Amino acid sequence: MNSLARALAPASIAVLGASDNPHKAGGRPIAFMRQYGFQGRIYPVNPGRAEVQGLRAYASLADLPERPELALVAVGGAEGLKLVEQCAAAGVGTVVVVASGYAEAGEAGRLLQERMLAACRAGGTRLVGPNCQGLSNFSNGAIANFSTIFHEQPGRDGPLAIIGQSGAATQSVYALAQARGIHARYVHATGNEADVTAAELLLETVEDAEVRAVVLYVEALGDPETLARAAARAAARGIAVIGVKSGRTANGQRAASSHTGAMATEDRVIDAFFARHNIIRAVDPYEAVSVAALCIGTPRPRGRNLVVMSNSGASCVMGADTADELGMPLLRFGPEVARRLEQAMPAFSSASNPVDLTGALLNDRALFPGVLEVLAGVEDVHLLMVSFPVAGSGYDVEGYADALARFAAGRGIALAVSAYQEPVREAFARRGLVVFGREREALRALNTYAAYAEGLRRLAARAVAPAPAVPDLPAGASGTLDEAQSLQFLRDAGIATIPFALCEDAEAAVEAARRLGGEVVLKGCSPDIPHKSEHGLVALGLATPDRIREAAARHAETIRALGARHSGALVARMLKGGREMALGARLDPVFGPVVLVGDGGIYLEALKDFRLLVPPFTEAEVAEALSRLRVAPLFAGLRGEPPADLAAFCRMAVRLGEVMLRFHGRIASVDINPVKLMAVGEGAFALDAVIELAAAAPP
Amino acid sequence: MNSLARALAPASIAVLGASDNPHKAGGRPIAFMRQYGFQGRIYPVNPGRAEVQGLRAYASLADLPERPELALVAVGGAEGLKLVEQCAAAGVGTVVVVASGYAEAGEAGRLLQERMLAACRAGGTRLVGPNCQGLSNFSNGAIANFSTIFHEQPGRDGPLAIIGQSGAATQSVYALAQARGIHARYVHATGNEADVTAAELLLETVEDAEVRAVVLYVEALGDPETLARAAARAAARGIAVIGVKSGRTANGQRAASSHTGAMATEDRVIDAFFARHNIIRAVDPYEAVSVAALCIGTPRPRGRNLVVMSNSGASCVMGADTADELGMPLLRFGPEVARRLEQAMPAFSSASNPVDLTGALLNDRALFPGVLEVLAGVEDVHLLMVSFPVAGSGYDVEGYADALARFAAGRGIALAVSAYQEPVREAFARRGLVVFGREREALRALNTYAAYAEGLRRLAARAVAPAPAVPDLPAGASGTLDEAQSLQFLRDAGIATIPFALCEDAEAAVEAARRLGGEVVLKGCSPDIPHKSEHGLVALGLATPDRIREAAARHAETIRALGARHSGALVARMLKGGREMALGARLDPVFGPVVLVGDGGIYLEALKDFRLLVPPFTEAEVAEALSRLRVAPLFAGLRGEPPADLAAFCRMAVRLGEVMLRFHGRIASVDINPVKLMAVGEGAFALDAVIELAAAAPP
Repeated sequence: MNSLARALAPASIAVLGASDNPHKAGGRPIAFMRQYGFQGRIYPVNPGRAEVQGLRAYASLADLPERPELALVAVGGAEGLKLVEQCAAAGVGTVVVVASGYAEAGEAGRLLQERMLAACRAGGTRLVGPNCQGLSNFSNGAIANFSTIFHEQPGRDGPLAIIGQSGAATQSVYALAQARGIHARYVHATGNEADVTAAELLLETVEDAEVRAVVLYVEALGDPETLARAAARAAARGIAVIGVKSGRTANGQRAASSHTGAMATEDRVIDAFFARHNIIRAVDPYEAVSVAALCIGTPRPRGRNLVVMSNSGASCVMGADTADELGMPLLRFGPEVARRLEQAMPAFSSASNPVDLTGALLNDRALFPGVLEVLAGVEDVHLLMVSFPVAGSGYDVEGYADALARFAAGRGIALAVSAYQEPVREAFARRGLVVFGREREALRALNTYAAYAEGLRRLAARAVAPAPAVPDLPAGASGTLDEAQSLQFLRDAGIATIPFALCEDAEAAVEAARRLGGEVVLKGCSPDIPHKSEHGLVALGLATPDRIREAAARHAETIRALGARHSGALVARMLKGGREMALGARLDPVFGPVVLVGDGGIYLEALKDFRLLVPPFTEAEVAEALSRLRVAPLFAGLRGEPPADLAAFCRMAVRLGEVMLRFHGRIASVDINPVKLMAVGEGAFALDAVIELAAAAPP
Repeated sequence: MNSLARALAPASIAVLGASDNPHKAGGRPIAFMRQYGFQGRIYPVNPGRAEVQGLRAYASLADLPERPELALVAVGGAEGLKLVEQCAAAGVGTVVVVASGYAEAGEAGRLLQERMLAACRAGGTRLVGPNCQGLSNFSNGAIANFSTIFHEQPGRDGPLAIIGQSGAATQSVYALAQARGIHARYVHATGNEADVTAAELLLETVEDAEVRAVVLYVEALGDPETLARAAARAAARGIAVIGVKSGRTANGQRAASSHTGAMATEDRVIDAFFARHNIIRAVDPYEAVSVAALCIGTPRPRGRNLVVMSNSGASCVMGADTADELGMPLLRFGPEVARRLEQAMPAFSSASNPVDLTGALLNDRALFPGVLEVLAGVEDVHLLMVSFPVAGSGYDVEGYADALARFAAGRGIALAVSAYQEPVREAFARRGLVVFGREREALRALNTYAAYAEGLRRLAARAVAPAPAVPDLPAGASGTLDEAQSLQFLRDAGIATIPFALCEDAEAAVEAARRLGGEVVLKGCSPDIPHKSEHGLVALGLATPDRIREAAARHAETIRALGARHSGALVARMLKGGREMALGARLDPVFGPVVLVGDGGIYLEALKDFRLLVPPFTEAEVAEALSRLRVAPLFAGLRGEPPADLAAFCRMAVRLGEVMLRFHGRIASVDINPVKLMAVGEGAFALDAVIELAAAAPP
């Protein structure tokens, strides 16, 4: 058993700074362990007391009859450091420091925390915190955690795990889950994360076969590899991981930095990373628990076909609106299903989707079961949202709930019920159905759940081709490669570029233009002049040898006048038509290679019509990202234009991702802007490229 | 008193189809009126009974001792029609037909409804419904409404009014408001709206001084003039109108059409209309009630400066994220306020906004009141969101609630409290504070409330200049004006166009080009050829007389060859630089003139980067609309470009709105695409324009 597994199931726990008062920081964990039936040995340590909460207390760690497997430290500042040092020296497996006065409290505290970590490292001791609420395991009562909420809302073993950097955030998730009747086996808050991270605890948690979903709250992600491994393991075991990563905006990052010193990561990188690893991203604890409720309480959907049903026509309209907004396909019933629905429904109801049960529900007890019976025979229903926005006196709510629970049993349909009235929700919840207080929330959660299920299938089917051979970087290259070198490298790496040639002189350029055919563009290349067009070094649409010679001479003269080196004249074929796209890659300092696909042109950064992807990824994933661009409607071909060759662009992007992985941090960035995206069958081509090499190659 | 006012306060009500069973449609209204203390006379009409619910019953309308002021008809289909005809013949003021079997039930029902309406019109009787839940007034117990919910959740007079086409939607609002302790004076559902519309009832309702907010649910808006009048009256009286207009999407409109036969209106027109009249748009009853709670329960904000405060650092981070997303400015505290906050807060807390009260709140009872005291001295706090995501045992929740209620009293700050735990919410709600179960909802609602308050100030300050003189349309014009006519008309109307001249022949074009100066564009004009460029009739960048002559000759030849009429050669100055925008206007069949401002070019419809405005509007309103375009970041000037002359564009748009109003439906549409938007100080100019006249001028 590894050290963290042991920390979650220790045979013995010492509480340093133990209090007799079960409502104080050093008293709560002892009270909790006894309340929740911890079967291991509890050792209160307090030099001033012989007994704590009825247990024999010890003056110091050295007085204990054994070396505890876990020690909880409830004493802060320099005093706490001393205790941690004693634990580390004694070889205690894990220390959980719930006390504060460390890195969160300024420079002096930061130094204490550094010494604390150093001591633990030296002793082989794992350190949770400091300034954290600690670890809780409700399956065995090992509650090394001092959260007040376990007094007020007693914990109970359940299928959820809650892990977060913030104690308040984990408590929020805990409270919201309990309000839904969902209990958590684990509640871990890691605070300052001097050593043990939330990601590492997640990695441990997803090994537990009883856990069905994990909610993770983080403000910074410093250890993406561990998170990626945990997510992969979770996917393999069918455990949903729902991540709330806050600090999404400039103001939020400022607040996060003052809260936990979190370093800002561009939020789209987080999105890309979560998407890559099929971690569900939730915006807050509320949404996280909504989705977790579905993951735990209803079958994983096999597709995205949605049926909406309500006794309110207005709810049907609003449900259809929301489905449209979210891009959820409302299943269209075939003629046979429609015929059977018409028989089951009141006269003049339309047997369409959303299914409007109308007020007739009030008088016709057979109506709802009848409609469900028809639906039971429809294979391709994947998601079902049943809304009774109001259904009170006169309505057979208990009967509907029975009918729906019978329908749901073993059917493999992800089912959400929405009702504005608490007693109506309660009737359905009592039968184990997942309920919502608002139709939009139910639909949003279903949509997220369906996307997650789709992601699992995608991960399972993902066969990333072995990276083909890639040429090495130009020997001795450093800094920024010039355009010709960049294009040449990309072409050698299998990324389509515009046909081009780097020519030593005007005559070679004329000859190259003849080989390329048609009109050409001529660019004066110099490693010292990155912005050619600003210096008039780009000549477009040259059709004759004379114009090529004239342009080459002018470029050479300009470069000479600038006192720059001249690498030659780059001649490239002119491509008519097509759309300008952007393709790029860079190394995120934490997350590594990230690939950008987007609308091209000089306003890329200003308009931000791009998506990021974390390699390796598939062509299908690129296509999905492209479909979410704002310019996506144009790809189909409008106003008589042919559709665009997206497949060619997707191939380029996949290849670029492979290149970035292959060069292990040696390439800092690749900017291909524009990529000319031609009509279907005609390809996509890098027209311009700049590759920047990383300052220092990794060892 | 007008007829609808009388319908809400009738001296006598007859119930046709009265039932002794208080749980049947014809029994419920009688039971409700007695339960809610209706002081007028109730006449049950039922040919089969001498007594109904203890009241003397009558065999027919003719047998009543007086002519009732209102009759409720609980008998459907053809039988119901007969009863309505009797009422109309007898001169009953208002008939509320709660029974169904009319337009919603197919063609035969539609004919019955038509006859019903005709009878009412002939008799001067107002008709509510049919197929509606009816009218309710809890201030006097006049409940001509058969909604089951009034049994289960008894009504009580309050500051809210609920008006909707859908009975279930009005009940949803009612249930959600009651869950917040908000009661409704009026609950009206208009069903098929053969005669009386929701808008008309709104117009009546906003005259009631006791009403503070109205929630309106509609699937179709057939009577925008009445809604506009009601909104204006509501604005003048400080009553908030919150509209849920569903059928926002294609699927939603399909569902709405099968629900109420609603005719689809492009949703952006609804947005523009609501914005113009400062009607708050909510997406569903849930959001509507959230906003209504603020409108009723907390002062109208004087600005948008937000302060977020929480005992959870994570909530502070997420609050900052949400504020950023919504564009809510987090107030930056001045040094003096920061200093005082630092004194009130625990050591090492940062005195920034969001204000992180930290876990120290648990042990320090003076902390929260102390921070509030500091804030009380800060003039420019307009919105305050206080979140206690979790605060249970050990927290002095009652004390916080007291402190916050004291702080809020008479302070003029819009205040929302968020807590995930129901008992925590309850403590604040008990003191009259507006509570939310989720921080994002609280912030969204505050943001909407602030925008509404801003809208009220805008309406109050709105001084629309008297429309200046506008030239008449070309005599005898009909159909589509050609480009020269269109540009000339716009120019005469005070909308800046590119300098241009329509020339009879090549020599005139040469002379015009000389006058215009610089390079010109030449277009071959024909009323028969709307798409010039497809026929090669646009020649760009002509700098010499020869090229002008050559192009003019070529155009003339092309037009001759096409057998089309030739209006001449349009010569216009070439404008270098600038951005292509679009400006347009059209007549919505229901809402009248609507003006479009957006990103220009051929992909206007595909990319939909535009906003609509309902004239008359101000330049500031156009600027606001432009700031919401996706291309808005480009207007500031990027990469060394100068900022754009938005003011010039705004003037053009305002003028176009005035022109559309001035021509009372005689202009069907104006398309100015592109408008060339130049650098600041250099103006904006219509480069191309097509004006389509309306088929038939209104009488």
